[in-house]
Amino acid sequence: MELKMYTVSLQTKLSPQFIDITDDVDAFVKISEIDKGNAVVFSPHTTTAIIINENDSKLLQDFADVLEHLVPKKQNYNHNTSEYEGNGHSHCRQILLGSSETVLIEDGKLCLGAWQRIFFVELDSPRDRKIIIQIMGNKNL
Amino acid sequence: MELKMYTVSLQTKLSPQFIDITDDVDAFVKISEIDKGNAVVFSPHTTTAIIINENDSKLLQDFADVLEHLVPKKQNYNHNTSEYEGNGHSHCRQILLGSSETVLIEDGKLCLGAWQRIFFVELDSPRDRKIIIQIMGNKNL
Amino acid sequence: MELKMYTVSLQTKLSPQFIDITDDVDAFVKISEIDKGNAVVFSPHTTTAIIINENDSKLLQDFADVLEHLVPKKQNYNHNTSEYEGNGHSHCRQILLGSSETVLIEDGKLCLGAWQRIFFVELDSPRDRKIIIQIMGNKNL
Repeated sequence: MELKMYTVSLQTKLSPQFIDITDDVDAFVKISEIDKGNAVVFSPHTTTAIIINENDSKLLQDFADVLEHLVPKKQNYNHNTSEYEGNGHSHCRQILLGSSETVLIEDGKLCLGAWQRIFFVELDSPRDRKIIIQIMGNKNL
Repeated sequence: MELKMYTVSLQTKLSPQFIDITDDVDAFVKISEIDKGNAVVFSPHTTTAIIINENDSKLLQDFADVLEHLVPKKQNYNHNTSEYEGNGHSHCRQILLGSSETVLIEDGKLCLGAWQRIFFVELDSPRDRKIIIQIMGNKNL
Repeated sequence: MELKMYTVSLQTKLSPQFIDITDDVDAFVKISEIDKGNAVVFSPHTTTAIIINENDSKLLQDFADVLEHLVPKKQNYNHNTSEYEGNGHSHCRQILLGSSETVLIEDGKLCLGAWQRIFFVELDSPRDRKIIIQIMGNKNL
């Protein structure tokens, strides 16, 4: 059983922003030479998340609207009364979305459905971010 | 360390529909002969999800009501203006629920609490679906 | 590849209650002597969850408010008409938050961002609870 870890550094530009990182994860699976196993894609920040869904710009706008409806930006958050950046909504949205996704690997490829893409989601003001990807499994015998 | 993968094919009948797949996952754990490790249960679709909770039909109706309240079916979704199936709500609900759950295995059994059951959740119109289950861990020495 | 499992028993006192268990998970990583791999933190209950975010009491109050707004405690739940404890809201909140989080390990330490802490979340009336932690990976060669 092999275990490899990779880091992606990126700069976000918008909020919210949905960045399709499927090709990056896919490239690391190839580099790892792991044929069967899984990839854990982890966001090491408290105001960014990892999700899986379709890369349709209209849909991503819909989901941004859902987030604004469920956890409005302009609302009183206790967190915003501290010496913070007024990002109470970003933290609360992150908790709903989660910090990681696990994707299975078979025949050296991510087992994603036809429309599934992996996204890194910026929920806070844009900045330098990173993503950690762990690939674990077996090389073909 | 052993690694096994299994696929379940199923046809959904309702929307939303909560299908208890615990017995299937349990059966694969037995077949795998893995005594200690974990099972990743993955939904390879953009409008279905995996959750864990109690199998009580009243509760599942309550959660369907929560989904309708949080992300109403009849609402304007940009996604629905494309040549799509009017399933913007299905995608947005999926993102809130997530694509997989990881369940631990000890003594050849899933480490689930007394009331915990694993569900495949159809959030879109009924159709043919599949679930991928990966079991990783050690056989008893 | 090594695989270790640990259990934490705890008594919750409030509802909702966010209990920072990062130091416990960290201690198990050290005990396991696993340098590279991951820790799956699993909640074996249908009304408790695992989340990752910042340990700021104001923020945790904000998120408790978000939960109350999205899934109110005082509302009609079909689940509450059975011989149950009136905890329909607790179950529905659990499904939104999920049963586990996976955290990566490198150099014998959890790969958490500067502000990330792992929380066990009580969503029901306080009681005895447990958490299962699985650490999988390689010891330093």
